[in-house]
Amino acid sequence: MKQYSDMSVEELQTLREELTKAYEDAKGKGLKLDMSRGKPSPAQLELSQDLMNALNTDSDMKTAAGVDTRNYGIVDGIPEAKALMAGMIGVKPENVIVCGNASLPIMFDTVSRSMTHGVCGSTPWCKLGKVKFLCPAPGYDRHFAITEYFGIEMITVPMTPQGPDMDVVEKYVNTDPAVKGIWVVPKYSNPQGYTCSDETVRRFAALQPAAEDFRIFWDNAYAVHHLYDDPAHQDQLLDILSECEKAGHPDMVYEFCSTSKVSMAGSGIAAVASSARNLDWIRKSMTIQTIGYDKVNQLRHVRYFRDAAGIAAHMSRHAALLRPKFEAVEQVLERELGGLGIGSWTVPNGGYFISFDACKGCAKEIVAKCKEAGVTLTGAGATFPYKQDPSDSNIRIAPSFPSPEEMAQATDLFVLCVKLVTVEHLLENKAQLSA
Amino acid sequence: MKQYSDMSVEELQTLREELTKAYEDAKGKGLKLDMSRGKPSPAQLELSQDLMNALNTDSDMKTAAGVDTRNYGIVDGIPEAKALMAGMIGVKPENVIVCGNASLPIMFDTVSRSMTHGVCGSTPWCKLGKVKFLCPAPGYDRHFAITEYFGIEMITVPMTPQGPDMDVVEKYVNTDPAVKGIWVVPKYSNPQGYTCSDETVRRFAALQPAAEDFRIFWDNAYAVHHLYDDPAHQDQLLDILSECEKAGHPDMVYEFCSTSKVSMAGSGIAAVASSARNLDWIRKSMTIQTIGYDKVNQLRHVRYFRDAAGIAAHMSRHAALLRPKFEAVEQVLERELGGLGIGSWTVPNGGYFISFDACKGCAKEIVAKCKEAGVTLTGAGATFPYKQDPSDSNIRIAPSFPSPEEMAQATDLFVLCVKLVTVEHLLENKAQLSA
Repeated sequence: MKQYSDMSVEELQTLREELTKAYEDAKGKGLKLDMSRGKPSPAQLELSQDLMNALNTDSDMKTAAGVDTRNYGIVDGIPEAKALMAGMIGVKPENVIVCGNASLPIMFDTVSRSMTHGVCGSTPWCKLGKVKFLCPAPGYDRHFAITEYFGIEMITVPMTPQGPDMDVVEKYVNTDPAVKGIWVVPKYSNPQGYTCSDETVRRFAALQPAAEDFRIFWDNAYAVHHLYDDPAHQDQLLDILSECEKAGHPDMVYEFCSTSKVSMAGSGIAAVASSARNLDWIRKSMTIQTIGYDKVNQLRHVRYFRDAAGIAAHMSRHAALLRPKFEAVEQVLERELGGLGIGSWTVPNGGYFISFDACKGCAKEIVAKCKEAGVTLTGAGATFPYKQDPSDSNIRIAPSFPSPEEMAQATDLFVLCVKLVTVEHLLENKAQLSA
Repeated sequence: MKQYSDMSVEELQTLREELTKAYEDAKGKGLKLDMSRGKPSPAQLELSQDLMNALNTDSDMKTAAGVDTRNYGIVDGIPEAKALMAGMIGVKPENVIVCGNASLPIMFDTVSRSMTHGVCGSTPWCKLGKVKFLCPAPGYDRHFAITEYFGIEMITVPMTPQGPDMDVVEKYVNTDPAVKGIWVVPKYSNPQGYTCSDETVRRFAALQPAAEDFRIFWDNAYAVHHLYDDPAHQDQLLDILSECEKAGHPDMVYEFCSTSKVSMAGSGIAAVASSARNLDWIRKSMTIQTIGYDKVNQLRHVRYFRDAAGIAAHMSRHAALLRPKFEAVEQVLERELGGLGIGSWTVPNGGYFISFDACKGCAKEIVAKCKEAGVTLTGAGATFPYKQDPSDSNIRIAPSFPSPEEMAQATDLFVLCVKLVTVEHLLENKAQLSA
């Protein structure tokens, strides 16, 4: 296989002709596929349809302690739901507050509260001249949207297969008191599917923040979202809460999680786990903000999943649906792009995404070309703060929603666009060099 | 019936002895009753238990337009839920955003958003020296808790049976640019059960605010919460949205509502209704804050209640349970306190509360005495900003939770405490006068 960069102008021109013709053919197929968001497929949603029967006309609607979930009361979650969510992410129930239908609003509220009221008594961030967040990137666009919305300066931190580049993280956190937080998706990261190594977790726990109100925003969104049942193909993540406690920084982290991609997207339950001191601070504002979250839905989830084992069994069924889609994408990528030197991609053990890196300066054009032919990808740049990918190379692929066949079709088009755009770039570069 | 104020010292002393003995007897009964919050009773919650069957394993989970409610998408509510909530409060569906499980968080978020981001492009309130809210009082303690939490100065406005004293409202709103909002429970107000008259609503709509970012926070919590089926005993409220539009101030009001006391408390659905411009501004932050609210619960409510007529029929069943409790309280109050000149109370056509005004300076002691004998009332003062009732006279009675029999028992104790505390005050006053 000849790498594109070794090709002559004539070879590239011939290739461009072939690829252009193939692309025009593909456009004629009238594809209409969406790989833009990590949406569960209809088949995955069907897996949880029995959740609708977990409570019915005859159900006892009380918790074990006798609290009627249909009435007001209990602002921080029913005990059974705390136990369920704690089991899912491997923390103690007393470190958990169960909230509403998704974790994003908990993260938003946590930042918003820090802006207006500070953190455990610190100066409200809106009263400070400058507030900064570290943003490992490529990362989750909705994290960056929150910090951008609140006018927080975002500093890009490189990602590695072991998690965020901790040399960079330590440099900023330990020296700059304006750095108040860092976004982390520690397991099966969005979009690469990387998981923080034990060393990375321990280096997080050992941070010596210049700001007392610095917090790690540990978005454990994919805690149980393995693609394989074989433990050898499942990533393991150390519990950051106990590591922070051991390191003498019990208050340094908020961990977020939800059942959005376990039960139903947007109709699940979500939680925040943290130290007693942080949770007390959160409860103080929660009692003003809400009369309590939806306890009936908490009870519904508890009755349906029962415990962590119930969730794990359920996730195995999700994996059976997701795995062929990831593998379909990976096969096409390997078959069509392997050895060409025009792109690299991750092969995760879990999560919802594959991260693709095209040649520098090609991502936006590839995404545009795909769209023109009916395949919608996440906007290029979306995985970076301010939607600015400095290399214009990262593309997030979300294989969950289309069927495996559609996924293969969409990936065929994708690799075609990667090739075509790269050839055009190479030809342009050569023309500039000879000019 | 002799008024207490006409009694001699000797008569009062004799009375005090009798009342003290009766109070000690009552303490011996070991009552344990809670009249502190507007909680639905278990029987009321049972009315909605079939809601748990509205969706089941076989249900079509799609909206009429084909959107799967189990997946991500639609940030501002499914169309059917917009129609349901619009019908409940008598506005147009296009003026409605349906949110999560209760209206309090929508109000909190609305204030919070105004603090950090302003209102439709105005200066964020946290950047202003001073922000003030008008607080008609007695009013809803949780409203005042929100404004206090955000450091907003609260100005008490007197309440009348026709709603807030509009002379005072106009004076502040039309002249002081620091006045950014007013809390109003326009129908069956908490705690009096008053409803804004047509004239009051029209005067609200005709306000000429000194601040362009002034908004009316119209908490229509009891829109359909009549105690009587007879229309002659049902209060009517003009639609503030269309009145504001007619008056040329379409953006001046946010209306809030929920099914918390229609279906299940804390597991209902809630909405905000406002102008297109305000809703666009809200959506801008909502798309950052959330991936969408619980659409499955929205669908569940739509399938169960169908429309405004379905809600009205359901509310009639609530009324049948609530009415005897309100009447039990009112009968005891009238029988025991009528003509004594030591207290006055409201007799509402709907809502969740009766407002009682004791003689000046007696409320705290009455509440404390009730508590000592096993009957918990809302804390005296709670119905005023900063929990400070300048006359120490207002007490909120919440008859919904206990049974009618318990309600009568609790009210017997209450009137006993009213009498005892008042007699003691009168004796003290007389002693001071003769000293």
